[in-house]
Amino acid sequence: MVESQAPRIRTKAKHDVLRITAMIQVKQERSHLPTAEHSALIDLDRALPSGAVVTDPDVCAAYARDESEAEPRLPDAVVRARSTEDVVAVMRVATRHRVPVTPRAAGTGRSGGAVPTEGGWVLAFERFDAIDEVSTRDAVAVVRPGAVLGDVHAAVEAEGLFYPPDPNSWASCTIGGNVAENAGGPRAFKYGVTRDWVLGLEVVLADGRVLNVGRRTTKGVTGYDLTALVVGSEGTLALVTRATLGLMPRPEVVRTLAVHLEDEAAMADAVSACLRARVTPRCVEVMDSITLGLLREAGVPVPAGSRAMLIVEVDGETDAADRDLERVGNALLDEGTLEVLVAKHEGDREQLWSARREMSRSLRTLAVNKLSEDVVVPRSALAALLGRCRAISERRGVRMPAYGHAGDGNLHVNFLWDTPDEKPSVDLAIRDLFEATVQLGGTLSGEHGIGALKAPYLALEQSSDLIAVQRSIKATLDPLSILNPGKIFPRAGHGGC
Amino acid sequence: MVESQAPRIRTKAKHDVLRITAMIQVKQERSHLPTAEHSALIDLDRALPSGAVVTDPDVCAAYARDESEAEPRLPDAVVRARSTEDVVAVMRVATRHRVPVTPRAAGTGRSGGAVPTEGGWVLAFERFDAIDEVSTRDAVAVVRPGAVLGDVHAAVEAEGLFYPPDPNSWASCTIGGNVAENAGGPRAFKYGVTRDWVLGLEVVLADGRVLNVGRRTTKGVTGYDLTALVVGSEGTLALVTRATLGLMPRPEVVRTLAVHLEDEAAMADAVSACLRARVTPRCVEVMDSITLGLLREAGVPVPAGSRAMLIVEVDGETDAADRDLERVGNALLDEGTLEVLVAKHEGDREQLWSARREMSRSLRTLAVNKLSEDVVVPRSALAALLGRCRAISERRGVRMPAYGHAGDGNLHVNFLWDTPDEKPSVDLAIRDLFEATVQLGGTLSGEHGIGALKAPYLALEQSSDLIAVQRSIKATLDPLSILNPGKIFPRAGHGGC
Repeated sequence: MVESQAPRIRTKAKHDVLRITAMIQVKQERSHLPTAEHSALIDLDRALPSGAVVTDPDVCAAYARDESEAEPRLPDAVVRARSTEDVVAVMRVATRHRVPVTPRAAGTGRSGGAVPTEGGWVLAFERFDAIDEVSTRDAVAVVRPGAVLGDVHAAVEAEGLFYPPDPNSWASCTIGGNVAENAGGPRAFKYGVTRDWVLGLEVVLADGRVLNVGRRTTKGVTGYDLTALVVGSEGTLALVTRATLGLMPRPEVVRTLAVHLEDEAAMADAVSACLRARVTPRCVEVMDSITLGLLREAGVPVPAGSRAMLIVEVDGETDAADRDLERVGNALLDEGTLEVLVAKHEGDREQLWSARREMSRSLRTLAVNKLSEDVVVPRSALAALLGRCRAISERRGVRMPAYGHAGDGNLHVNFLWDTPDEKPSVDLAIRDLFEATVQLGGTLSGEHGIGALKAPYLALEQSSDLIAVQRSIKATLDPLSILNPGKIFPRAGHGGC
Repeated sequence: MVESQAPRIRTKAKHDVLRITAMIQVKQERSHLPTAEHSALIDLDRALPSGAVVTDPDVCAAYARDESEAEPRLPDAVVRARSTEDVVAVMRVATRHRVPVTPRAAGTGRSGGAVPTEGGWVLAFERFDAIDEVSTRDAVAVVRPGAVLGDVHAAVEAEGLFYPPDPNSWASCTIGGNVAENAGGPRAFKYGVTRDWVLGLEVVLADGRVLNVGRRTTKGVTGYDLTALVVGSEGTLALVTRATLGLMPRPEVVRTLAVHLEDEAAMADAVSACLRARVTPRCVEVMDSITLGLLREAGVPVPAGSRAMLIVEVDGETDAADRDLERVGNALLDEGTLEVLVAKHEGDREQLWSARREMSRSLRTLAVNKLSEDVVVPRSALAALLGRCRAISERRGVRMPAYGHAGDGNLHVNFLWDTPDEKPSVDLAIRDLFEATVQLGGTLSGEHGIGALKAPYLALEQSSDLIAVQRSIKATLDPLSILNPGKIFPRAGHGGC
């Protein structure tokens, strides 16, 4: 565990004000802790329901990191909110004492967005998890930030409806994190990302004011689109306490193709072939030769000679999906693919997807260390990006397996290494990748966000004016910079502005 | 023509600096015009290519109003930009002299957004109209703000692609206006509005800085979504000089149903019936009994006993569209509709749509004056909203025909009157409508924007905190408030904040 620079209160079970106050006094006597932080904690504990504020370092330790490689840091306290009122209370006290607040949902993020890099408090949403409503008449769901995406899927699908975003972590990630990061997933190719399905939000500002932005209707142009501004802002502008999600009728069936290619470079053409067939598959996933090897090990049948594979799925009403499958399959065969296999049974499909979902974990078995970046390029530049990855890999001597959402030009490029002395080469390879991505007209992140990990690279893609404008919007909404500080923007002196 | 309060330079043909300077001097001697405005105009003329700045009042008169009922006002000058550099030059001079700038594309807006309500200059984009690129490989189009939407549709459809937004004015409105107002149209039910199709923008800020926001890729979560913030901001935050639009494969065919109902109140159930059939039509348009009468006069066959009508369209690959049509048609018949007619020939379809497109003009023949509002309610509240319209109409003695996009809960409610003494009742009826809309969980505008006309009503829907936050974002990007001032936000003392 990385040591926090801020003092912390060590206590196993507590939470009434008297006890916490007493303990702080004890600690203070012992270690001369600054009074300001103690008085902030006392105010916090007073403002929240009993049990909501936790300072036990064993508990706090679980909130020091997320699923990224970002440097962990122990928060001074964790607040487990259960209501909008709790969130308001936290932000009022945080504003009064200028304490950094890092929001956290399931902690499945890949860019360090939920790591309290500047100390302060972690505001945990996992217990603020109700699904308030699923309306078939309005085709909306109203959910709280801690609701697990998989539970939301189940609840709306039980009503014959469908909420498309499906990040890989759907079984554990939550709506709050999805909104903060603008989560995507394989189905984004056809259905778009989280932003496309969030109609309205209740949010709490840094100073504790509550705003209702957006609406319950699909259309609406009253004022600025603050909903879209908050989605993907990584908890730096406002905290989501309720989301109204648009829904659509649930597709009747899904049909799945496994498409094998003799050459990675043929991927982009394969995607274009689908579109020329006038079919928009719900997903076009890709795996390169290294990740394909892992798939083979997981028991997925992979023909000899296959150097890359696409998973192409179409969905809709049964007959239409079957015909779309045929069209896409034929278009891909005409494009000169090695083999096009149809997943005939749900079991075949599940085997394929479970191997795909486990890809990140499987890659971890290949080396001691793994870092993953999720760059995006225009679809036509996908083959060029893969070529650049191969060249970087060779030049820097770093293994770089890649897989991802080919339809969107969104590639998860992994960096594998075993010993610390390899890390400088990995860092150079990452910078090379980002530079190549920007040169190809792409963007640093398609789904994971910038967070703490990619902040130093922001200026590779964005002009200093653009960064300055975003900073000024941040300053307008969060003048004390207490909402998830240290995320998105490079630190002063690290490029940008 | 309404008289402008600001002094204006009268000159028929000019544009070299010497001549304009000379004329200003002459005018100044004659009429003691303020020096500040003259020196601003001289700077403007110097900064722009010859012929770009027009002060001829006959020309300016064409830029004093848009297609709304907003009070016209003659601008001091019109600048016809042809490039990003022109726009930068205008904003630099405008910033230096604090001159209000009202952007204008085709002037087809319905909320007074293009009316220079605070005087100053109109920045006209109609000659900045290139379609730079249509890429089939990346499925994007790159266009300039003055490009006419109909031309963009034609250009992308020629490549087998499709750009869904289709406001009624598509034959003349332009992309710049579409982006500013976040234009919708009938197809929004299935495909969403302009915001859903704008991937990236080049914009010019109030101080002349140029930003590239968004991207060419469909996915991307690098930094805040400033693209979505600019879309629908009605020219108050930044000026669009280039838009990168996402495209999709063009649907092979469109199939059209005319659905007649015995009762307006059955509309919402009819829309729900479509969704229960697991089909998302590309549009579900509605016409009430008054507008149905106009359709009948236009030669569209309307069965006796029909009190409301839906136009339902499905699209896609031929067989799929035919089957969807059958499904939706059967679902609607099961719902107890009066009659479901299939438009068998393209001629039938065109007759229906041309009558629908002319609806606004046809309504003008029924009275001397007409005002139109485009409120939205959650789909399930559509019947309730229509009921409230009937009650308001009766209480206020104002004829209120309605039509619109039933699938989106987006109703165009019209107010007809003949003599000025009826206007106070109309104003009361409009306020009643907005109040009813908000009570039903809806929003003031689905497509037209707030502009000048609805600004006084903003606080009916939005809290003072929400308005204050939006104002602060506006102030961040446009600290001198020179970009389309007087739009969206109520004037001080008129509610809000």
